[in-house]
Amino acid sequence: MSRQASIELLARARLCRVACAHEGQPYVTPIHCAYDDNHLYGFSTLGQKITWMRANPLVCVLVDEIVSPQNWASVIVFGKFEELTDATHLVAHRQHAYNLLQTHPVWWEPGYVETVLHGKARRMEFMYFRIHIEQISGHRGAPDHARLPDSEASRGTSRWFHRILGRSEQQSGNRK
Amino acid sequence: MSRQASIELLARARLCRVACAHEGQPYVTPIHCAYDDNHLYGFSTLGQKITWMRANPLVCVLVDEIVSPQNWASVIVFGKFEELTDATHLVAHRQHAYNLLQTHPVWWEPGYVETVLHGKARRMEFMYFRIHIEQISGHRGAPDHARLPDSEASRGTSRWFHRILGRSEQQSGNRK
Repeated sequence: MSRQASIELLARARLCRVACAHEGQPYVTPIHCAYDDNHLYGFSTLGQKITWMRANPLVCVLVDEIVSPQNWASVIVFGKFEELTDATHLVAHRQHAYNLLQTHPVWWEPGYVETVLHGKARRMEFMYFRIHIEQISGHRGAPDHARLPDSEASRGTSRWFHRILGRSEQQSGNRK
Repeated sequence: MSRQASIELLARARLCRVACAHEGQPYVTPIHCAYDDNHLYGFSTLGQKITWMRANPLVCVLVDEIVSPQNWASVIVFGKFEELTDATHLVAHRQHAYNLLQTHPVWWEPGYVETVLHGKARRMEFMYFRIHIEQISGHRGAPDHARLPDSEASRGTSRWFHRILGRSEQQSGNRK
């Protein structure tokens, strides 16, 4: 997918999967998001993912639209987390995050429900953040055979994969 | 969600999002998966995620079923990646991965299409792996008010959030 097509998919997205990492351990959660001008804006209650992103702002965001196994698109973003506190220089960005997110119905739901379902009596604190997009790549699977190697296309996916997987299976079988 | 309910969701899943990390940079991709006996089995072409998981086997897997913003369930797994090579002691597990995955229609599609769409002329190599589940937690959002704090439940979600978000908005506005 072109960069433009990838950005268009991000702009349509309401839900993204955000991965962060702490001391080599990755952590991925669903987050409600909104795209604008090379940033993804989000909202969350305080918790492990926020603690981790504060300590290490490197994140990866996955947004996908999966219609069927043959018909899907996904965009992967590498970027940096920035908390939008009420510090003076961030207020306009925080307000922008709110304005963007509140145009989506029940946008606060994932950020809120998570905390309550943990069943912990912690104080509920909300925060806004944005992710600066540093690298973006998009892939698309289409329901045709165009992506198959030319020499194999006419034989159809099923037969081609039976051959590949059959060989793998046979190798395993021989060593049993 | 109970551990049992979380495992049942994993067992229904066909698609999961797997996060790995390399030198503090997380990376999350969609992967076709199949659950059995405290493991998630997967299939992939060789690429960045496999290189990273070989170097650092710590992974996080997200599986979710999202019906609507109010009606969803998600399971997060922390675990360890293990490549199922054709080494003698792994052959039975590799065969098991194949047997499990091939019961799903077009299960090989995400692993295969990704390589071709990258447009690189690299040699296509396939591999099986499994993730040992070390920690599992599940959350569910249900379309009722049961999860609201008691004192707030009767007022309804909408009014409650207008109050919280209105305050946040006002704070931002005051500092503009």
